[in-house]
Amino acid sequence: MAVPDEFFNPRSVAIIGASRYKGKVGHEVLRNFVKKFKGNIFCVNPRARSILGKACYASVSSIPKPIDLAVITTPSSIVPQVLQDCVAKKVPAVILITSGFGELGELGRKKEAELRKIISNSNTRVLGPNCMGMISAVVDTNFNPEEKQKRPKAGNIAFLSQSGAVGSTIIDFLAEEGIGISSFVSYGNQTDIDESDFIEYFGSDKSTKVITMYLEGVKYGQKFLHKSKSASKVKPILAIKAGKTSSGEKAVMSHTGALAGSSAVYSGIFKQAGIIEVDSWEELFDAAVAFSTQPLPKGNRLAVVTDGGGFGVLAADAADKLGLALPAPPPSTLKVFREKFPPYVAVKNPIDLTGDADVDRYKIAIEECLRSKEYDGVLAITLFQLPSLDPAVADVMIQLKKRYKKPLLVCSTGSAYTQKIARKLEANGIPVYPTPERAVAAYAALCGYKSS
Amino acid sequence: MAVPDEFFNPRSVAIIGASRYKGKVGHEVLRNFVKKFKGNIFCVNPRARSILGKACYASVSSIPKPIDLAVITTPSSIVPQVLQDCVAKKVPAVILITSGFGELGELGRKKEAELRKIISNSNTRVLGPNCMGMISAVVDTNFNPEEKQKRPKAGNIAFLSQSGAVGSTIIDFLAEEGIGISSFVSYGNQTDIDESDFIEYFGSDKSTKVITMYLEGVKYGQKFLHKSKSASKVKPILAIKAGKTSSGEKAVMSHTGALAGSSAVYSGIFKQAGIIEVDSWEELFDAAVAFSTQPLPKGNRLAVVTDGGGFGVLAADAADKLGLALPAPPPSTLKVFREKFPPYVAVKNPIDLTGDADVDRYKIAIEECLRSKEYDGVLAITLFQLPSLDPAVADVMIQLKKRYKKPLLVCSTGSAYTQKIARKLEANGIPVYPTPERAVAAYAALCGYKSS
Repeated sequence: MAVPDEFFNPRSVAIIGASRYKGKVGHEVLRNFVKKFKGNIFCVNPRARSILGKACYASVSSIPKPIDLAVITTPSSIVPQVLQDCVAKKVPAVILITSGFGELGELGRKKEAELRKIISNSNTRVLGPNCMGMISAVVDTNFNPEEKQKRPKAGNIAFLSQSGAVGSTIIDFLAEEGIGISSFVSYGNQTDIDESDFIEYFGSDKSTKVITMYLEGVKYGQKFLHKSKSASKVKPILAIKAGKTSSGEKAVMSHTGALAGSSAVYSGIFKQAGIIEVDSWEELFDAAVAFSTQPLPKGNRLAVVTDGGGFGVLAADAADKLGLALPAPPPSTLKVFREKFPPYVAVKNPIDLTGDADVDRYKIAIEECLRSKEYDGVLAITLFQLPSLDPAVADVMIQLKKRYKKPLLVCSTGSAYTQKIARKLEANGIPVYPTPERAVAAYAALCGYKSS
Repeated sequence: MAVPDEFFNPRSVAIIGASRYKGKVGHEVLRNFVKKFKGNIFCVNPRARSILGKACYASVSSIPKPIDLAVITTPSSIVPQVLQDCVAKKVPAVILITSGFGELGELGRKKEAELRKIISNSNTRVLGPNCMGMISAVVDTNFNPEEKQKRPKAGNIAFLSQSGAVGSTIIDFLAEEGIGISSFVSYGNQTDIDESDFIEYFGSDKSTKVITMYLEGVKYGQKFLHKSKSASKVKPILAIKAGKTSSGEKAVMSHTGALAGSSAVYSGIFKQAGIIEVDSWEELFDAAVAFSTQPLPKGNRLAVVTDGGGFGVLAADAADKLGLALPAPPPSTLKVFREKFPPYVAVKNPIDLTGDADVDRYKIAIEECLRSKEYDGVLAITLFQLPSLDPAVADVMIQLKKRYKKPLLVCSTGSAYTQKIARKLEANGIPVYPTPERAVAAYAALCGYKSS
């Protein structure tokens, strides 16, 4: 069923279980909203008059205004009553943070069936229970204290996570790295809305360019396949499936209780659904950042430009393993290189500009490759530490990126000096990877997506 | 042939080709020595009287004192003459930075044969040409300007690199990460001393606990096998072999000109030699840090303790793929867990302490696993961001690490808040990895080493 837009763009919100006490979920969530939410905020707490300057009500029903989004953080025992109130109040979107349901076994699953009964035949949709909810520029129900966890800037990557804790940890990492997201959704037990509903939502969400997922198991296989297939036609979906081994599958059982299913079955479904599968969350966001910032390559032919021969070799190895082509420069390009470069520059692919490469040499090499019909994309490996390489090479790359509509990725590693240049490139839409292998894998992911 | 100790602990040094001009190799190298070398420094430059406060001489022969180490940075045309001077002066150790030899092809290889002839029947040993030389607490011939590249602290990891630029870039990264090295050696064309000689040296070097290598090709297969076999009996050797694919092999040919050789042949040699092979330089140092700080595990049985179920699942998947065992807690341990933990804690392996885990719960779980005969090592996954986890958990882990002689690794990811705790753990000998996969791979590397 469709995810109501009130989850993402509510005009009013009720925090049910709002608490005075710092560290409590009901306090931290309220604090998030007080800090950045522009609409009306109402607290539900029968034992308080106001918290953080927001008036408290005994129940949702007693709030005198309509509520678009209710966030429930009460103990599980009173959740059914609270949810009934939300239905009565005609709240379209409910984020149910509270845990103590299906993840605890049979009894908990019965409680969830009860919740489903409460909302049946209503227009109230529920995200959760047992989740961290959402983080976006508008809604933030992540209850990790702000001193402990940063929030990422606004961007075009949507991130769906079955695990709330893992998801929020990664979000903290993304914030540190300056990677922007459209929305993060921790969907927990999926008693009502499931991962496929969110895939559908993000598929048509204009602020989302790429969808990323951490999955332990899929709720309804056919639905997942159907919704993913539609969404992946218009934008890339990247997923990491946890619990693909025997030990991992057992761990999933005691975590989310999902049926992890065999690795081969999942890989098969992903392939059919047009989902690009990755092996670690690092790879997930390495690829997401490439999709987020780069045009799609027309093919798998990559030019590698480097001032460090060894990193060129590692990139070539990685490209070979991932089935990418590294064609030699065509005659016209070769002619330019031979004219303009010293004789010891290796005008093959990788193009090894050697350790005394300067900005001009990089400009010529990158531009000729971006211009050539022989290449679909360029990886520039830049050892910024070398004496003759001026940091102005970043400006040149930023200009070239604007001029040519092909992917341009950078590999750079090192300390504060190089990181400063890398941040500048990233701020201008050129992703920077710390190893040749990770840069090449990100390019291979770009090549793995075909829209229709 | 044995590497003379004068390379590592010279009492006097001559910089041949010392330059007044900032940015020139002969200037940057001199500056390094002036900054940190405690012995006598002499410059060789016939057109200057003194540079950076050090007296200049027209040639090595005219220096009135004995020279332990000569660093040559002159143009390649005069290298033979300079080297002859060094032999006449009985300089035991020469670092020949200059490029323009065998890496350029047949003519260059002839020039190297000439160099070999000059030093034959002498006690002068040459590192290089076409290299960055060495970085240690005593000797530093890396010519990347200090504004661009940090130097790592003293530590017990030796790093041998066939590629100078790549090696020094990684060194910059290690410095940023606070990872210490005993020595870095960029050995270039190996016209005299080769990688096997250095493996032998580091094998008996007391300040080195683990040897790491970036290799494109091996000079003498039998010698390499023999020296590595001996060294790997007393300490672990980790290597990344670049140029293992067809594209990579071609790239090696235009880089160092080494015969890359087939992937299977190298993997076979590494196995015979007791060398642990890795696939990326990130993995190389992930593993090296584990060897550098942890006792060797007695077997491959790992306990995974986590407060984020999802990261537990990813760790289990990684362990399974790498052939590690994740046995369930034995009855005695289980009894303690059942007594002391709330009922929703998953007392399996991974042990999922769940999102409300506090310091006590971590202390009990980690200590029981370190104490138990069922486990050879522990991976503690800590989402420091969660509200109930106090950063004091780091102190507990540091205490436990001192008390029990088993590997203890940590996985943590996030922004400044978590990174501060991670740095504290690392400073106390507990390595911290940003993903479960990388932590598990480092543990697997520890299990892959058998001393004799």
